[in-house]
Amino acid sequence: MKVGIVGIGHGKFGRRSDATVQELAFEAFRLAMEDTGNLDRKDIDATIIGSVPEYHKQRSLPGVVAEYLGMNDQPTWLTEAACASSSAAIRSAYMAIRSGMHEVVAVLGVQKMTELETPELLALMGRVGDVQWESIFGTTFPGYYAFYANRHMHEFGTTHEQMLKVAVKNHHYGAMNEKAMFRKEITIEKALAAAPVADPFTVFDCCANADGAACLILASEEKAKKLHDTPIWLEGLGCASAAMSLLRRPDLVSIPSAKAASEQAFKQASVSPKDIAVADVHDCFTIAEILAYEDIGFCKKGKGGKFIDEEQSYIGGSNPINIDGGLKAKGHPVGATGASQTYEIVTQLRGDAGKRQVDGADVGLTHNVGGIGQYTFVHIYKR
Amino acid sequence: MKVGIVGIGHGKFGRRSDATVQELAFEAFRLAMEDTGNLDRKDIDATIIGSVPEYHKQRSLPGVVAEYLGMNDQPTWLTEAACASSSAAIRSAYMAIRSGMHEVVAVLGVQKMTELETPELLALMGRVGDVQWESIFGTTFPGYYAFYANRHMHEFGTTHEQMLKVAVKNHHYGAMNEKAMFRKEITIEKALAAAPVADPFTVFDCCANADGAACLILASEEKAKKLHDTPIWLEGLGCASAAMSLLRRPDLVSIPSAKAASEQAFKQASVSPKDIAVADVHDCFTIAEILAYEDIGFCKKGKGGKFIDEEQSYIGGSNPINIDGGLKAKGHPVGATGASQTYEIVTQLRGDAGKRQVDGADVGLTHNVGGIGQYTFVHIYKR
Repeated sequence: MKVGIVGIGHGKFGRRSDATVQELAFEAFRLAMEDTGNLDRKDIDATIIGSVPEYHKQRSLPGVVAEYLGMNDQPTWLTEAACASSSAAIRSAYMAIRSGMHEVVAVLGVQKMTELETPELLALMGRVGDVQWESIFGTTFPGYYAFYANRHMHEFGTTHEQMLKVAVKNHHYGAMNEKAMFRKEITIEKALAAAPVADPFTVFDCCANADGAACLILASEEKAKKLHDTPIWLEGLGCASAAMSLLRRPDLVSIPSAKAASEQAFKQASVSPKDIAVADVHDCFTIAEILAYEDIGFCKKGKGGKFIDEEQSYIGGSNPINIDGGLKAKGHPVGATGASQTYEIVTQLRGDAGKRQVDGADVGLTHNVGGIGQYTFVHIYKR
Repeated sequence: MKVGIVGIGHGKFGRRSDATVQELAFEAFRLAMEDTGNLDRKDIDATIIGSVPEYHKQRSLPGVVAEYLGMNDQPTWLTEAACASSSAAIRSAYMAIRSGMHEVVAVLGVQKMTELETPELLALMGRVGDVQWESIFGTTFPGYYAFYANRHMHEFGTTHEQMLKVAVKNHHYGAMNEKAMFRKEITIEKALAAAPVADPFTVFDCCANADGAACLILASEEKAKKLHDTPIWLEGLGCASAAMSLLRRPDLVSIPSAKAASEQAFKQASVSPKDIAVADVHDCFTIAEILAYEDIGFCKKGKGGKFIDEEQSYIGGSNPINIDGGLKAKGHPVGATGASQTYEIVTQLRGDAGKRQVDGADVGLTHNVGGIGQYTFVHIYKR
């Protein structure tokens, strides 16, 4: 039995001081319900929230969201896998439907990060690395990814300019995406000259903390065909973990969980990297998108810099990537990101992406990394 | 296809300054692996963590736990539903297996609550109620349940002594449970005279914050029969939500999500309350166990006080309940509680509960409430 997506909704990402976390959730949910059209709240058997709870003042988030959405007394719970929390929710919804327990499940990725003061938020984020042996020495989130960047430069001669070309691309497409946080083109020169964060990164290598939500409605094959003219089918799912502490990783030029999860998803969906017409990958830092090119298999290990030099990840290249602006330009409300990536892929596969449309896109992929690579979820969708 | 439990492990609950959160997880996991016997870590397809992340300094808990358990690169993620977090993990594991995605799944309920200072912990717990409209006025967790207690006394003439009889029973059995935090019998007189918490509660009406972990290994029917002589089958699952804010509840003498979840579980398992030979219910406060008697259907609404007066929830009564000491005597490491309840029911159904054994127990039930009733998960197990 296949599982299809029959409704999608996406709120504006950014500093959303106009909305509480439950209001952000409702905004995306309402849009997904409108998109599906032919569905009553009572027809949704369960709501799975993807979010990182500790960034909110409100505890027990599914409780307040279910009430605000008018979804009592249906089942609800939350999944957390750091920045991949709503991909864990998508995986859970898929299993809920395939198991026969539920026919229609809403996935709600939601996060309000700007409730906390920046120093508190940075301290919390650093603790996404191993507290006992690593973050206690002061490692910050950008610091972790800077390790990857430096090692990639050392082993493969990748340059900081190549990394920033990723940011230039993502801002280019983000400027066309009305849901994105940053809608301005940038240049390599401007990005190189910007404030340093963790060597070699400047602020333009780093995605931004944001508030936002995205909602997906998944249904069983039979229901999906009734609910939507063009259901988009979730046909490959990969999920893998890797050592959290970098000292136990085999190297720093790859995210092992991303490679393993990609292999699982390609195998289940019976496709290979060359079949992926459009992908959303986890570019929390510019180097992360380059690692993604290589770990997914769009190019060979060490060739990610060349891949962006050749503009292979632009529309018209071999594998258009982050055509919604990616985490870099769209913003990264951590729990919402996996659902937001899927929103974009569904939009592209439906042919609804307007001036950002990848012509004839029929197979799409999402790659959502949790934390510093301790988990990756890869999903493959087909029209 | 049925889903069976083939391995269980339970660490000591209490103030565990001897162990980090990953060490607590490992302690329970190791015992579950030993209990299963015939299983290698590589045979476990996924690990689902049930926990409330915000009580830990370490973020991204499944990452650090999977590494410490030697479970890379298998999939892992976390489920959260406040105090019912590991029941959400059990539900997820059931769906993962029924969907055909996984054959063997480990559920790990784990929580270390004593890392935080008490005032910080109390503030966090109060925010399990609605932050925008209720907890901002100072409502604490015991305060919420005191509302239920007072209203039950007002409507049905239930007495504080009847509530404390629940505590006396649970300490009676807890004294026989080597995993329990408190292993002393108490008397009504001592409990009545103890320090007040929220009228009418004294400290003996309230369960204690604790550290601890419990682990369950679930498997598909085919695998379960190979892995254990006496698999215990999960045959009924209920999950429902209710309004988080008390102002939107129809009354304060029932938890609507508990009634709805119980009905779902009884229907799926084709049994009724009278068939339940042994149950573990969510006695975070004494009144909560009385509400559980009524909401599950062990007695009629308003008759919970009489039910404990008649000792119907003791061994020898109509429905023996919390024969492990319950949250009250065993301690309540919130994310671990659902898995701990299941550990007890599996032990009873296997006939391994020693001097606490309910003779001939063949059908068991767990009732795990999240927060102040915004979710309840009910599971029914058969030998």
